[in-house]
Amino acid sequence: MKVAIIGTGITKFGEHWDKNLSDLAFEAGIGAITEAGISSKDLDSMFIGNMSAGRFTGQDHLGAFIADKIGVTIPSTRIEGACASGALALRCGINSILSGESKIALIGGAEKMTDLSTAHVTTGLMGAGDEEWEGEVGATFPSLYALMAQRYMHEFGVKKEYISYAAVKNHYHASMNPTAQYPREITLDTVMNATMVADPLTLFDCSPITDGAAAVIIADEKTAKQYTDSPVYITASSQAQDTLALHNRKSLTTLNATVMAGKKALAQAGKTIKDIDLCEVHDCFTIAEILAIEDLGFFEKGKGAEATFNKETTLNQGDVTINSSGGLKACGHPVGATGIKQIVEVVEQLNGTCGKRQVNDAEVGMTHNVGGSGATAVVHILEK
Amino acid sequence: MKVAIIGTGITKFGEHWDKNLSDLAFEAGIGAITEAGISSKDLDSMFIGNMSAGRFTGQDHLGAFIADKIGVTIPSTRIEGACASGALALRCGINSILSGESKIALIGGAEKMTDLSTAHVTTGLMGAGDEEWEGEVGATFPSLYALMAQRYMHEFGVKKEYISYAAVKNHYHASMNPTAQYPREITLDTVMNATMVADPLTLFDCSPITDGAAAVIIADEKTAKQYTDSPVYITASSQAQDTLALHNRKSLTTLNATVMAGKKALAQAGKTIKDIDLCEVHDCFTIAEILAIEDLGFFEKGKGAEATFNKETTLNQGDVTINSSGGLKACGHPVGATGIKQIVEVVEQLNGTCGKRQVNDAEVGMTHNVGGSGATAVVHILEK
Repeated sequence: MKVAIIGTGITKFGEHWDKNLSDLAFEAGIGAITEAGISSKDLDSMFIGNMSAGRFTGQDHLGAFIADKIGVTIPSTRIEGACASGALALRCGINSILSGESKIALIGGAEKMTDLSTAHVTTGLMGAGDEEWEGEVGATFPSLYALMAQRYMHEFGVKKEYISYAAVKNHYHASMNPTAQYPREITLDTVMNATMVADPLTLFDCSPITDGAAAVIIADEKTAKQYTDSPVYITASSQAQDTLALHNRKSLTTLNATVMAGKKALAQAGKTIKDIDLCEVHDCFTIAEILAIEDLGFFEKGKGAEATFNKETTLNQGDVTINSSGGLKACGHPVGATGIKQIVEVVEQLNGTCGKRQVNDAEVGMTHNVGGSGATAVVHILEK
Repeated sequence: MKVAIIGTGITKFGEHWDKNLSDLAFEAGIGAITEAGISSKDLDSMFIGNMSAGRFTGQDHLGAFIADKIGVTIPSTRIEGACASGALALRCGINSILSGESKIALIGGAEKMTDLSTAHVTTGLMGAGDEEWEGEVGATFPSLYALMAQRYMHEFGVKKEYISYAAVKNHYHASMNPTAQYPREITLDTVMNATMVADPLTLFDCSPITDGAAAVIIADEKTAKQYTDSPVYITASSQAQDTLALHNRKSLTTLNATVMAGKKALAQAGKTIKDIDLCEVHDCFTIAEILAIEDLGFFEKGKGAEATFNKETTLNQGDVTINSSGGLKACGHPVGATGIKQIVEVVEQLNGTCGKRQVNDAEVGMTHNVGGSGATAVVHILEK
């Protein structure tokens, strides 16, 4: 039995001073329900990806919280895996369909982050890493990814400009995405000369703090065909783990969880990496995008940054388009929503509804959602 | 296909000043792996129930955290539904088996709560209720359940002593449970004359703050039979939601989510409530146990407290034994672990290994795990 996506919903990503977490979740959820042409009464279950509502808003128990707002009493469960919470929620929803528990399920992701000080948010996000061995001694996520960037430049003799070009490219893509937090182009000089956050990563190498929500409606194949003639099928869903702390890994320039999840997903879908027309990768920092496109197999290890600089991953310029949405960097990164936003982007691309940022002949899309500094990686493959 | 439980593990519940969250989770997890006679390499996935590690220890991303400690790279996901996190993790694990994703899965629950001030913990736990409408105005969980108790006494003309006897009975059961946080008997006078927490609930009407972890190994029927001749089968797993805030409910003396989940579970297992020999119910407060045994159908509405006082739910005294473990009240309530502890207790009862607290002729057991003040309810039925 196959699982299909029959509707998507998403809020504008950005600073929503006039909306709270439930407003955002409701908007995305009802959007997906409406697009699918179903009623909330048709839902059998809900799975909600969220990392830090407890720490950021005081509200845990997000499954019940969202069910309450939507007005349903069906099973509704919150799933958390740091920045990979959204993709993990989708995986639990897929299992709910495949097990026969649900015919139709709503999968949502939401995060409200901008009501707090940056220090509070940065400390909270460190809960995605190893609190005892990294957080307690003052490490933050920019510093962990800065270590990876330094090592990458050292091992492969790569210039910082090549890595940072991922941000330029992603802002270009975001400039064509009305949902994006920063829908405007930037220059490489802007990235290189911005405030240093953690050497070599400047402010523009880092994804922003964002409010937002996204949702999809999934269904078994038979049910899906009752609602749409052209469902998007989830042909692979895989997940792998690695150590939380960087110091326990053999390499700082490979995320093993990404390698494992990527290989497994391709095998599940019966595809090779060359079959992938577009991929939303987890670019929480520019270096993260470079490592991802290498670890997934789009480019050889050490070659991803130069390929990015040479526009091989820019919209319709090479064999694959990476982060047509603008990625976490420019579309924004409301942590729990990101994994679902990636799915929404690929669904829209496969449906050919992306306007100026449409990937030509998009037939096979991939998403890559990472938790922490790579302790969780989740890969999905979608096809019409 | 049926899902079976082939091993269990549990830590002592209590104040573990010398152990952190990973120590506790590791102890329970390895205990379950050992009892099942498997190796960690045999696991296909893990689901971890936890409510508040982020707020209580700084560590989120518990799926990766526990996988790291156990030394595996298989998919590992944290599930949160407040105090029902454990049972929800089991539900996600069941779906993973039934979908064909996993043959063998580890389901764990863990919480570390005693390293913080009571005020910090009480505030954190309020994230299980409606933060905006209840938490912000100063409500705490004892105060919410006190409202239910007051209304119950008013509607049904029930004496406080009848409600509080649940604590006396649960301490009696705990006195025979070496895992329990408070393995000693108390008198009704002790409950009635203890410090008032939220009128009419005194300190001894309330479950304690606890550190602890529990785990089970589940497998599909065929795989289970490779490891044991006498698996315990999960014959029902159901979940329902209600509003987060009490003020949105029609009644303060019925938890609708419990009613819905209970009926659905009995239908799934093809049983009536009279078939249930023992049930672990969610007695976060004495009144919660009374409402639960009525909402599940063991007693008519308004009759549960008197039945409890008349020892109809005491070990081997009536038609059903309620909370043979000592319940949340006396065995302890490490929030994320509680739902799994309930499962461990029923498995041990069905296996006939409970010694002095053994329920006679235990053939069909039920667990009832609640999130918040009833916004989530999860019911499982287990049979040999």
